[in-house]
Amino acid sequence: MAKNEDQIPERTDVNELGEFGLIKHLTDRFPINKPSTIKGIGDDAAVVDYESRKVIFSTDMLVEGIHFDLMYTPLRHLGYKAVVVNLSDIIAMNARPEQITVSIAISNRFSVEALEELYDGIYKACAFYNVDLVGGDTTSSPKGLIISVTAIGSAAEEKITYRDTAKIGDIICITGNLGSAYLGLQILEREKQLFLSNPGIQPDLEEQNYLISRQLKPEARIDMFELFEKNDLVPSSMIDISDGLASELFHICSQSNVGAYIEESGIPIHPDAEQMAVTFKMDPVTCALSGGEDYELLFTIHPGDLEKVRFLPDIYIAGEIVEKSDGINLHTTGGNLHPIIAQGWNHFSKTDNK
Amino acid sequence: MAKNEDQIPERTDVNELGEFGLIKHLTDRFPINKPSTIKGIGDDAAVVDYESRKVIFSTDMLVEGIHFDLMYTPLRHLGYKAVVVNLSDIIAMNARPEQITVSIAISNRFSVEALEELYDGIYKACAFYNVDLVGGDTTSSPKGLIISVTAIGSAAEEKITYRDTAKIGDIICITGNLGSAYLGLQILEREKQLFLSNPGIQPDLEEQNYLISRQLKPEARIDMFELFEKNDLVPSSMIDISDGLASELFHICSQSNVGAYIEESGIPIHPDAEQMAVTFKMDPVTCALSGGEDYELLFTIHPGDLEKVRFLPDIYIAGEIVEKSDGINLHTTGGNLHPIIAQGWNHFSKTDNK
Repeated sequence: MAKNEDQIPERTDVNELGEFGLIKHLTDRFPINKPSTIKGIGDDAAVVDYESRKVIFSTDMLVEGIHFDLMYTPLRHLGYKAVVVNLSDIIAMNARPEQITVSIAISNRFSVEALEELYDGIYKACAFYNVDLVGGDTTSSPKGLIISVTAIGSAAEEKITYRDTAKIGDIICITGNLGSAYLGLQILEREKQLFLSNPGIQPDLEEQNYLISRQLKPEARIDMFELFEKNDLVPSSMIDISDGLASELFHICSQSNVGAYIEESGIPIHPDAEQMAVTFKMDPVTCALSGGEDYELLFTIHPGDLEKVRFLPDIYIAGEIVEKSDGINLHTTGGNLHPIIAQGWNHFSKTDNK
Repeated sequence: MAKNEDQIPERTDVNELGEFGLIKHLTDRFPINKPSTIKGIGDDAAVVDYESRKVIFSTDMLVEGIHFDLMYTPLRHLGYKAVVVNLSDIIAMNARPEQITVSIAISNRFSVEALEELYDGIYKACAFYNVDLVGGDTTSSPKGLIISVTAIGSAAEEKITYRDTAKIGDIICITGNLGSAYLGLQILEREKQLFLSNPGIQPDLEEQNYLISRQLKPEARIDMFELFEKNDLVPSSMIDISDGLASELFHICSQSNVGAYIEESGIPIHPDAEQMAVTFKMDPVTCALSGGEDYELLFTIHPGDLEKVRFLPDIYIAGEIVEKSDGINLHTTGGNLHPIIAQGWNHFSKTDNK
């Protein structure tokens, strides 16, 4: 390792720059790439031109101690993830994300250098997903770090996919694989506890790279958005899987007024996740159903579109939309039907401080 | 007073409702009124249709202990204000605000009833300004209350007013009056200190109603937006006055690459503010120049538009845009020119906890 342990890292207090200076310092190098961006940072508001396309927007807040733990979350990854989770919501409408705003509140334990790292991650996400940072707010907080991102995008009206438009007979599809991000979090939490009880231990996380990266640096499925477009496919309904498959399936079913069954064998699970679930004495399918933060897509297609999907990479046919009265069930590999219970993450039960 | 002091106010824990239940409970009664709203709360993202109009959006974060003090800020007013400060940014682009999203993070010291009060204020602001609440996020925080609002609106391209388009010879105008919100804050801070040193004292704030209401329940100048439209007036540049006249004038001048002078006699100050400044041994003009949160508009007009403005209510002609080399000056009633120094609020110098 090239790092010199004796070297004291540079620490510039944010007060040295002031609010406007800090925003400028952090955002100066962000380019404006989108033809739709008319005005970015530097006025009362951003201005964009989507011509006759519809405007899609969504906002999310990430709070230190609730949504992330800086003990094992590098700020660069956090910045990247804060953008990704919002882009995922736009993509889940089958819309193209085009711009974001980022507001942060920080306590004075954060230096300019720490914020540079955070914005490095934001920069990387903007570059990878080709979105422009066009505004935001930088302020102080009495405690911790809070990041609020708004993502905005556009779509032709006939392409937009909602949650409430799944029809009986539609085929249920899932992208990627599920449960990995949750198991990555379990590994990080376990290592944190080990470290807290014995700070001398250096964890070797190399072997679990895949699961950990799914937790720390998730990706939004912009590739699927592009694949749909290329194959002239418009899902009949869609939602991103941020709270676990069960919870998202419930949203689609209750809003579309239908039921569903999922084939246990149709739930995509990564081999690393299978193995790690066993290590933690957990059921891999339960991790996929109830673990959060995979940011994959759950969507339904008209049965007539089956041929369009069948041979597309990384899309798995997992079940079917049925009558509401049939409920929401898991069809196990053993041939049984088990009702699926929605048990998404509830960030309200996680806090216990005043 | 009808209030029964012995009655214990109802307190419902937010955990009883859960995240989705809470959002639904708080937002269920919000109507969708705007023809442009296609999809509001209840999907991955909101969808709006501005046809060929441009999209204007802005976001702001309010943090307890930094931007507001719940000791003297009723939650209802806070909800109202959180919306207003964002709408003000949209209006300052000469655009019509149409939708908002509201994200909140709350510690468990907040009950459902407290949040209902907050949303009462948000509801009132939505109703008064005719904007739809279309999304947001409700999560927990380890400490205090954080509100992040994104406002979105639309405008025809030729109507949008920026900060960087003021021209030499343009006339500087100010709406309403300045310094009142700042003096309202001084009163509230004084009363808080009195109360903390002697909790038996009941403050009588009746006489200062105007200044206090400017601080606690500011309004955005949607009436000016409508007045401009009715009089076929497009300002040559515009900004809302959230950080004091001096700071906003600096933004316009530096971005437009011009100078300016302001007539001391042209700065509108309310008689109550004049009087209260004297009580606090402050200069009323300094309060107008450096006090924040009035949410009035500072704008410039082409001299040819002077007749359109001259007789409009609540608009004051305050100065002129000049060569950059002439600097930014105050022309005092005594006939002197004093350089104006930008001294906006800096929320980074306000926090001192970890």
